[in-house]
Amino acid sequence: MADLRGGIDLGGTKIQTAIVDGRGDVVGQARRPTPTGGGPEDVAAAMAEALREAAKEAGVESGDLAGVGVGSPGDADEKTGVVSAAKNLPGWEGSFPLAEKLKQALGTEVEVGNDVQVATEAEFHLGAGQEFESLLGVFWGTGVGGGLVLGGKPWLGRGAAGEIGHMVVKRGGAKCPCGRKGCLEAYAGRSAMEAEARRQHEEGQKTDLFHLMEKHDKPRLTSGIWERALDHGDHLAEKLIERAVEALGTGIASAVNLVDPEAVILGGGLGVRFGERLMDPLCEEMSKHLFVDERPPAVRVVSLGDLGGAIGASLLVSR
Amino acid sequence: MADLRGGIDLGGTKIQTAIVDGRGDVVGQARRPTPTGGGPEDVAAAMAEALREAAKEAGVESGDLAGVGVGSPGDADEKTGVVSAAKNLPGWEGSFPLAEKLKQALGTEVEVGNDVQVATEAEFHLGAGQEFESLLGVFWGTGVGGGLVLGGKPWLGRGAAGEIGHMVVKRGGAKCPCGRKGCLEAYAGRSAMEAEARRQHEEGQKTDLFHLMEKHDKPRLTSGIWERALDHGDHLAEKLIERAVEALGTGIASAVNLVDPEAVILGGGLGVRFGERLMDPLCEEMSKHLFVDERPPAVRVVSLGDLGGAIGASLLVSR
Repeated sequence: MADLRGGIDLGGTKIQTAIVDGRGDVVGQARRPTPTGGGPEDVAAAMAEALREAAKEAGVESGDLAGVGVGSPGDADEKTGVVSAAKNLPGWEGSFPLAEKLKQALGTEVEVGNDVQVATEAEFHLGAGQEFESLLGVFWGTGVGGGLVLGGKPWLGRGAAGEIGHMVVKRGGAKCPCGRKGCLEAYAGRSAMEAEARRQHEEGQKTDLFHLMEKHDKPRLTSGIWERALDHGDHLAEKLIERAVEALGTGIASAVNLVDPEAVILGGGLGVRFGERLMDPLCEEMSKHLFVDERPPAVRVVSLGDLGGAIGASLLVSR
Repeated sequence: MADLRGGIDLGGTKIQTAIVDGRGDVVGQARRPTPTGGGPEDVAAAMAEALREAAKEAGVESGDLAGVGVGSPGDADEKTGVVSAAKNLPGWEGSFPLAEKLKQALGTEVEVGNDVQVATEAEFHLGAGQEFESLLGVFWGTGVGGGLVLGGKPWLGRGAAGEIGHMVVKRGGAKCPCGRKGCLEAYAGRSAMEAEARRQHEEGQKTDLFHLMEKHDKPRLTSGIWERALDHGDHLAEKLIERAVEALGTGIASAVNLVDPEAVILGGGLGVRFGERLMDPLCEEMSKHLFVDERPPAVRVVSLGDLGGAIGASLLVSR
């Protein structure tokens, strides 16, 4: 029992928890929506509840776990356990001592780390990146996040490495949700893609995207809605996905030219949904910009799926 | 005497050699032009000659050295000592066993490495990067090269890491000497800048650049010629240097967003010539694209100057 660890993947939409055994197998899990109101205290309470639910499924109390790891958005300080500027979460513009609060609630040690970095490490240890010693994780979802494993170890830089979504693919280009111009995320992030689709739709461009969104009762253009639109041959959806893939190929190639990893692991909501389908055009776009184009890195879709973030978070405990 | 090492910096224009003692001090040096005709055998012979000259100045025979390191352009294989595709060197499109040939000529062990990577390591161990554990070297010259030291160790990737000059700063942008589009080097490399100056001059843009080049009997627009033109307030020179600085700031910021190093060390012919003068505009351009802009990396100009490459090469011996 002492080798059971808990993992919590804290997302803007949902909280996913998992109890992981010493072999990396998931023996309990739970999921609940991220609170949309209140503040960090409320989010922490929902996280603790979701972790206890997973522990119950695994037949243990949270206090019996060797520890709990959290993959968090925003600026997660591994040393202090404080999470700051998690702007997708309610009332979390400032700093909050997340590890300390969860430790009190759960009765075991709690470690925090960056969400996409821990998901990259999960794929490195247990998923699609197991055969490689160096890899770049690219998480293509609401935003575009990234993580690095170099020479078998996580590379965090000064704590903020991996921001591939804010590498510039076009100087002076599209406005990014981060406020800067020409970032990869400005072309490939789901939020930016939705804003661009809405803008073009309002200018008279025909599309079924928003009709599908309403029909399926979604609050936004989810990866599932984009997929349906592509399946219907929706011209605007095709155009914007193609634009995203061009930007992704360019940004990933730039990253590979700098770091030269063995593999690129593609995850995130859109990455999981479209990774296989768009693998060929993505690799083609990459190869246009790879400096050593005769030996491109391996490109794989994540294999741990939705649980990767929580499993990766659990690995923080033994780090 | 056994702790004396030799270093050879093999450039497209000149061969610089140094004999370095155990404290990192240079106790002998020599320089000669890189042969412009013949082939790799001729280049290797000139390298051996320049190394022997430096050894003589240090009062030793080359065979007495603990070893000799070579910082080479092209694709330098550290394991085999073979250098391939050194396209700036005469007849060196294919592969040549450089370490083996030099070992025969010099009577001591020879190691080869990438020229800008070893220059980065020299700055890390002995120069402007000594106080940092992670740094990005940016060598702004004929092309734009780069090197990485992460967590106190060189990071070579699969052998080709550090190609910051071929990170894309503008998708669909200017043609790069490498044949691709929108690379940093397409805007900031001296070769690309000269080609653009020539194109605009032929289209009728007024400039003193080519007049200065002839007056000073230079075969091309050297960094000294660019400096004179700037000092004269030459409009085209100002415009193209500004364009290069914008691209450099963008590319460096992208690299920092991905790797998050403590410091950026700027070298190369143009970097050494203009680093201090253009430090403010460069940092301003960077800050426009830094994701964590409240704590930019330190930016320093190399402190080992022209000898950095040869000193760094000598460090390959003890690696």
